[in-house]
Amino acid sequence: MELFAGDPACAFCGIVSGRVPASRVYEDELVLSFMDIHPAAPGDLLVIPKVHAAGLEDIDEALMAHLFRVVHLLARALRRSGLPCEGVNVFLADGEAADQTVFHLHVHVFPRTTDDRFRLEVRWQERSRAALDHDAALIRARLNRGGDRRGTP
Amino acid sequence: MELFAGDPACAFCGIVSGRVPASRVYEDELVLSFMDIHPAAPGDLLVIPKVHAAGLEDIDEALMAHLFRVVHLLARALRRSGLPCEGVNVFLADGEAADQTVFHLHVHVFPRTTDDRFRLEVRWQERSRAALDHDAALIRARLNRGGDRRGTP
Ligand SMILES: [Zn+2]
Ligand SMILES: [Zn+2]
Repeated sequence: MELFAGDPACAFCGIVSGRVPASRVYEDELVLSFMDIHPAAPGDLLVIPKVHAAGLEDIDEALMAHLFRVVHLLARALRRSGLPCEGVNVFLADGEAADQTVFHLHVHVFPRTTDDRFRLEVRWQERSRAALDHDAALIRARLNRGGDRRGTP
Repeated sequence: MELFAGDPACAFCGIVSGRVPASRVYEDELVLSFMDIHPAAPGDLLVIPKVHAAGLEDIDEALMAHLFRVVHLLARALRRSGLPCEGVNVFLADGEAADQTVFHLHVHVFPRTTDDRFRLEVRWQERSRAALDHDAALIRARLNRGGDRRGTP
C-alpha cells in the first residue's frame, strides 16, 4: 500500500489510488491503463506505471519492459476494438523540452485513420556519414546497463 | 543465420545483414540500433528487431519487451552523450495510416531541446465520461494475452 500511495499532487497517482475517476482499460500489479480524458481521437489511451516516476530516469529496465508489454497488448486490442483504427502510434515524452506535461511517466497509445488531423511537423535534416558515426560514438560511450550514472558528466 | 537473412527488398534488413551501411549504436542477438540517416536532430536514432517484422502484430510480447528495454538504455545514453538533449521523445508508427514509411518495425528515439522545430499538431477533443467508458469497454473486450486473433472480427 505504501508503495502505491503516490504523490498527493499528482493526477495520475490520484487515478491509481481511485481518488480521481478514470475509464480503466487494463490493470495489473505494476501498470495501469485508462482512456485519455482529452483524446486526440476516440480510443486514445494512456499506459502508466502505478508507482510515481517522473520519467525514464526514474524507472528500471524491468518496469520499462513490462510497461511496453502492456502497450503491445493494448495496441493490438485497440485495432480489434471496432473503434476507427487503421494504424496505431505510440508516443512517450520524457521531459518538459519533449512536451511532457504530466510529470508521471505515461505512454500514449492512439488510433490513427488516413483522414485524421494528427500531424508531426519535423524538419528532417541531412547529416553526413562522418557526423552520424560521431554521434553514434558519443551515445555508445554512455551505454550503461547497470547502475545509476545520473549526474555523471 | 537463416533467421536473420531478412527481406531482400527491406533497407533495415540490409542494415542488419551489413549489406547497407549504418552508424551503429547498439547490437545484441535480437535488437539493433543505428543513427537515423535523416534525423530530426543530431542524435536521432532507430531501434529495430533484427528479424523482419512489419509491425506490432508481427512480434511477440517478449520481443516487444526487449525492444523497449533497449530503448530505455539508449534514451538514457542519449541524455548523457553531450549532444544537445534536454528531453527525449519515443515514437513508433504502426501502419501506413500512422505514418509508418519503412515496413520493418522501428522505434524512433530522438533528443529534444526547448528551441527545436519539432511540433505535434493534434486536435485535442473533449469526450464525456460515458463515451470514455464505452471506448474502454470496447478495448477491454479485445484484450488477449495469448494466441493470435488476427482476422477475428
Ligand atoms: Zn504520480
Ligand atoms: Zn526488414
